Amino acid sequence: MADLPPSVRIVEVGPRDGLQNETQFVPTEAKLKFIEALRSSGLSEIEITSFVSPKAIPQLADAAEVIKQVTARGGCRYSALVPNERGLDRAMAAGIERMAVFTAASETFARKNIRMTVAESLATFGPLVRKALDAGISVRGYVSTSFVCPYEGAISLQQVSEVSQAMLDMGVDEVAISDTIGAAVPSDVTSLMEHLLDTIPAERIALHFHDTYGTALANVVAGLQMEIATFDASAGGLGGCPFAPGAAGNLATEDLVYLLERMGISTGVGLQKVLHASDVVAKALGRELPGRQWKRWHCSQC
Amino acid sequence: MADLPPSVRIVEVGPRDGLQNETQFVPTEAKLKFIEALRSSGLSEIEITSFVSPKAIPQLADAAEVIKQVTARGGCRYSALVPNERGLDRAMAAGIERMAVFTAASETFARKNIRMTVAESLATFGPLVRKALDAGISVRGYVSTSFVCPYEGAISLQQVSEVSQAMLDMGVDEVAISDTIGAAVPSDVTSLMEHLLDTIPAERIALHFHDTYGTALANVVAGLQMEIATFDASAGGLGGCPFAPGAAGNLATEDLVYLLERMGISTGVGLQKVLHASDVVAKALGRELPGRQWKRWHCSQC
Repeated sequence: MADLPPSVRIVEVGPRDGLQNETQFVPTEAKLKFIEALRSSGLSEIEITSFVSPKAIPQLADAAEVIKQVTARGGCRYSALVPNERGLDRAMAAGIERMAVFTAASETFARKNIRMTVAESLATFGPLVRKALDAGISVRGYVSTSFVCPYEGAISLQQVSEVSQAMLDMGVDEVAISDTIGAAVPSDVTSLMEHLLDTIPAERIALHFHDTYGTALANVVAGLQMEIATFDASAGGLGGCPFAPGAAGNLATEDLVYLLERMGISTGVGLQKVLHASDVVAKALGRELPGRQWKRWHCSQC
Repeated sequence: MADLPPSVRIVEVGPRDGLQNETQFVPTEAKLKFIEALRSSGLSEIEITSFVSPKAIPQLADAAEVIKQVTARGGCRYSALVPNERGLDRAMAAGIERMAVFTAASETFARKNIRMTVAESLATFGPLVRKALDAGISVRGYVSTSFVCPYEGAISLQQVSEVSQAMLDMGVDEVAISDTIGAAVPSDVTSLMEHLLDTIPAERIALHFHDTYGTALANVVAGLQMEIATFDASAGGLGGCPFAPGAAGNLATEDLVYLLERMGISTGVGLQKVLHASDVVAKALGRELPGRQWKRWHCSQC
């Protein structure tokens, strides 16, 4: 396999995308322990919480506490999802250094998930991103349902590039092109990347896969072959999406690290250490995790 | 993704590679129902049993009964694994039309699994294959641990090509290059295929993946990109290997069909019908199956 990126940046989203989908509230102390275990594994960017309404997602009601209490940094960048002006005020008061905003390529998904049209969401995020940037907070932008929408089916390449470009124009430094329900296959990734790379540089694109149908790693390789070098993942394969019927967990960080390191692509992340971090959250949740490495590791410990 | 094969032949190995690893004996009647459900899904080749010693693998002690009783064919080719002369005699008496022989690229794995050196296994299979061919029985050859051996680690490309060539020289019509413990990553597949294709035509190579670490579909795509068009799979992801520490189930047939059909590569296999076949065997076993499509399908039925 020629011309793959020599190294990959992994954006860990377990504490946010993972824990927001759990039925139970993980105590702040356990969250902090989980985040610290992730950081010490070598991960350089972790999305640790979300400033959504605590009524909508009570699992992350302690967002401000979490942000205030993560002190160890050691080269790691912590970020938080921010959905609106109110969230931004709370996030800024807590002292975030990086944030993420979230829209969709699918109109129906946007309406059901964030209760705005795509255009409304972009209009909402524009001032938010400006305010954040003015305060020295960097911003990434999620484009969810970039491949398949659970309501609309296949999404047009043009829709994804328009939304992505609009987000980049407002100042996000990268767009996370997301396969929210995990239905994408490698040829979808190739087609969409070919289209996006016409106008967007590869270093502005991250790929965010869920592993519903076992295609996530195959999709990562398709992304690598298109020179994409940033991938989101979630320790142990935590995750899913309560608003997306059929969505399973995110691609597991350990599974991604295994694939990449075995392919000679450096991640800076220690596989065993991520497994230990997953164990921290698995114990807090009292349940098994879906990641393959995690399952095998636990099986070998039985 | 340019130049992928327009269609793929799937060799279903669930009734053999899957059921041989179960702790319980599935009644002959249930096996026949499972095989018929697989056949009616459009699968054109199914490895349905093994003529190993019933003492070693009691789960398949009814091999002769299974062969004798599968009557519906409708374009489907049934095969059986045959490990030795005694097995061949039983298989021929039962009336097989196709068989598989099995060796390894790793010396240690061969010694532990089939209690022969690789050279001894080839010397054993030579006369067996000749006898089968003389009787009008076609033969495929498995080369297990072609990527990573649980005892020796990485296997050299040269070892795999020598064993593969020896099998082809004795008259097998295809070699199933097998990742017995599911440790391969796509770059391994590319390297090995580049090496093998120097001397062996693509149509003589099948790829047989286990999905231990979630890399199986990524490996399939790497194989497709090297023009390989035959892949083994197992309904619901049945399988594993009792002699290979850490080996999980085979790549699930449904997961493979989903990936290929979504990529525009025809398989002739109906996804829903394979799911129904998996359900037949899941009910017989009284347990859940690991395949992703199967899990999602069941989840949606709860």
